[in-house]
Amino acid sequence: MSFNFVKEAGKFLCIGRNYVAHIKELNNRTPSQPFFFLKPSSSVLLPKDGPILVPKGVVVHHEVELAVVLNKQLKNLDPETFTAEDALDAIAGYSLAIDLTARNVQDEAKKKGLPWSIGKGFDTFLPLSPFISKSQIPDPYNVQLHLKVNGETRQDDLTNLMIFPVHQIFATMSSIMTLEKGDVILTGTPKGVGKLVPGDHVEAFISVDGKVIPESVIDVE
Amino acid sequence: MSFNFVKEAGKFLCIGRNYVAHIKELNNRTPSQPFFFLKPSSSVLLPKDGPILVPKGVVVHHEVELAVVLNKQLKNLDPETFTAEDALDAIAGYSLAIDLTARNVQDEAKKKGLPWSIGKGFDTFLPLSPFISKSQIPDPYNVQLHLKVNGETRQDDLTNLMIFPVHQIFATMSSIMTLEKGDVILTGTPKGVGKLVPGDHVEAFISVDGKVIPESVIDVE
Ligand SMILES: [Mg+2]
Ligand SMILES: [Mg+2]
Ligand SMILES: [Mg+2]
Repeated sequence: MSFNFVKEAGKFLCIGRNYVAHIKELNNRTPSQPFFFLKPSSSVLLPKDGPILVPKGVVVHHEVELAVVLNKQLKNLDPETFTAEDALDAIAGYSLAIDLTARNVQDEAKKKGLPWSIGKGFDTFLPLSPFISKSQIPDPYNVQLHLKVNGETRQDDLTNLMIFPVHQIFATMSSIMTLEKGDVILTGTPKGVGKLVPGDHVEAFISVDGKVIPESVIDVE
Repeated sequence: MSFNFVKEAGKFLCIGRNYVAHIKELNNRTPSQPFFFLKPSSSVLLPKDGPILVPKGVVVHHEVELAVVLNKQLKNLDPETFTAEDALDAIAGYSLAIDLTARNVQDEAKKKGLPWSIGKGFDTFLPLSPFISKSQIPDPYNVQLHLKVNGETRQDDLTNLMIFPVHQIFATMSSIMTLEKGDVILTGTPKGVGKLVPGDHVEAFISVDGKVIPESVIDVE
């Protein structure tokens, strides 16, 4: 079980609104093409780092997401010719991620037309699992994402519900900013996001064909 | 002249709306406290990297800004007790930066309540000068920021016009995300922002008491 990929990550990029039922639960509009934002490396939470911090006055929501780790630079990809297979070739492996979000801060920013960096960027707002090898996830669209709070299932959906597949995400991102080897890309959250309070026990994991991947487990308070 | 600080930077943080006359020129509201956003390391433009890229359909605006480089970690600073002098102690040195902005992309994002990461994060959107030692800038509020396009002055103001001083910026940022040694923080742009087109010759530099700092010079197409 290794977290070495975290040190190698030059940036953490996150797709917003990539699952229809999640878009509906927050009354958002479905984007016509992928949009994304950055989370700072300072927001990464590893098992040794202690609990999720809930800042005073902040409503923290969990968003469980499949993250991919790049094994090469991707620059100005042509969306017409970059295929699903090309995308798989560019993936070093995976991680499970929770894109924690200060929902009230984000809502305020959205209303005022301000950046999302604060609402998405608090310390501890990016719990990550260890690195998951590609052999454990032969198909990134056959990944069941699970998140439980205090033993109760909150999120439980298959990644084949993604609106924009990974090759389209890579193509869009790479047309704006060069993706570097080691970059970590979160692919969006399915429905079921909700509030966390201090002391909540959060467990998240991936199963493939009903079998839990041990490396994928996140277990935090 | 050294750019080593760029490799050491874990993140690039930028304050928005920190000069009154700039807020007015874009018809924005003055924030009651500092807000900020992240630029990716992939957007840094060094002299060897070639020209500023103007993506198709994008209106690129220049924003010249004083950047500070941290020499230590700053975490949960108390805004009541963290002083201007404490902030100076935490500064390793400076750089001149141009926070290039895809203004039409940003305007659209503001209208739709979307993140600023795309509008601020294109490749080449962060030209930086070499590292400027603290001895050359004894007072960060006595820094004249200059930006010329094709020989014509577009921006020319003193940093004492900042709304939020550096210690307040550090305190606010550190209460949200831990600032790390090496992080680079852009302190906002004065009035005079405007459009760049391919082939424009952009010169930016700092003067202190009328004397140009050679390390501060940015000269790009
Ligand atoms: Mg998310
Ligand atoms: Mg780094
Ligand atoms: Mg700016």
